[in-house]
Amino acid sequence: MTDTRTRILEAAARVFAEKGYHETRMDDIVAASAASKGSLYFHFPNKEEIFFGLIETFIGLLETRLRETLSGEQRGMEQLDTALRESLRLFEQYRALAKIVLIQAVGLGAAFEQRRRAINDRFVTLIRERIEKGIQDGSLPPQNAELSARAWVGALNEILIHWIYTGTPDLQTALPEIKAFLARSVGARQ
Amino acid sequence: MTDTRTRILEAAARVFAEKGYHETRMDDIVAASAASKGSLYFHFPNKEEIFFGLIETFIGLLETRLRETLSGEQRGMEQLDTALRESLRLFEQYRALAKIVLIQAVGLGAAFEQRRRAINDRFVTLIRERIEKGIQDGSLPPQNAELSARAWVGALNEILIHWIYTGTPDLQTALPEIKAFLARSVGARQ
Repeated sequence: MTDTRTRILEAAARVFAEKGYHETRMDDIVAASAASKGSLYFHFPNKEEIFFGLIETFIGLLETRLRETLSGEQRGMEQLDTALRESLRLFEQYRALAKIVLIQAVGLGAAFEQRRRAINDRFVTLIRERIEKGIQDGSLPPQNAELSARAWVGALNEILIHWIYTGTPDLQTALPEIKAFLARSVGARQ
Repeated sequence: MTDTRTRILEAAARVFAEKGYHETRMDDIVAASAASKGSLYFHFPNKEEIFFGLIETFIGLLETRLRETLSGEQRGMEQLDTALRESLRLFEQYRALAKIVLIQAVGLGAAFEQRRRAINDRFVTLIRERIEKGIQDGSLPPQNAELSARAWVGALNEILIHWIYTGTPDLQTALPEIKAFLARSVGARQ
């Protein structure tokens, strides 16, 4: 059973994709979600919050998949392969939405930039912990794990934003090269 | 002799730093630059263009220094060291301005995001050409030079934006680690 909040977000994603963020009114989302107006405003006081709700849902999904992979059975390059493959697949699946989010979110100014910084920091922490584990078990050479993790987040961010705007490179084709770059960068044995 | 355009940009940088971008009026910049109102509007039709002029000046400076280093006598790690050292020094020198630019520019929306994409692409080209040269002369292993270059731009961007916001890590201290990360990532012999 899908809860109302999720139903509203799914409807909002469809309406944003169809009409654009700025042209969308709260009433359009009410109509598309089959939620009551009261229920919509209970969950989201305004359109901006729906927008951030969408971003948070996507980022939450990405984070959950990464945590599952990192706590799973796989090790080393095999784990990196799965983590990257899953993440890129998620971006492919949500490219249309990601494009709307990125292109329209820039108009939201400082509020969006702050969330973007906070999201980057969450992924930096996730990756830093994994690199630290690698240094401890000797599979990675000593390094500034925080710096390497931040560099990974920046590198992937730039590759993905470029892909969202231009469609290139094809992510599944580029996957082995992205993986090789990241592995080399932290000194992993390939 | 400083030309009027440069004088206006220098004055605008001071006024933005003092009053904030949004509080600054064109008249403040006229007063601070000792340029005539007509001259100001001749060079910059509005405040947003002054803002982009500042960004362009900084990026132009960075690009020139990088091109000088890349076309100089140095090779390999020595060249990377100089290029990084010069770039980080430039960011340190202009941190206050960079902070204003980054924090206030997010309010400029899509126009700023487009310029940001274009600037990133310029640096990707610069770095890609250098990596291709390395592949040709055998100092770097075969790789997707475009992808590696984009990953570098993203990595450096994230490290620098984080530094502009938080002041950490100290760039000169982190320089050897940044250099090591970048060198490893493209498979350079250190």
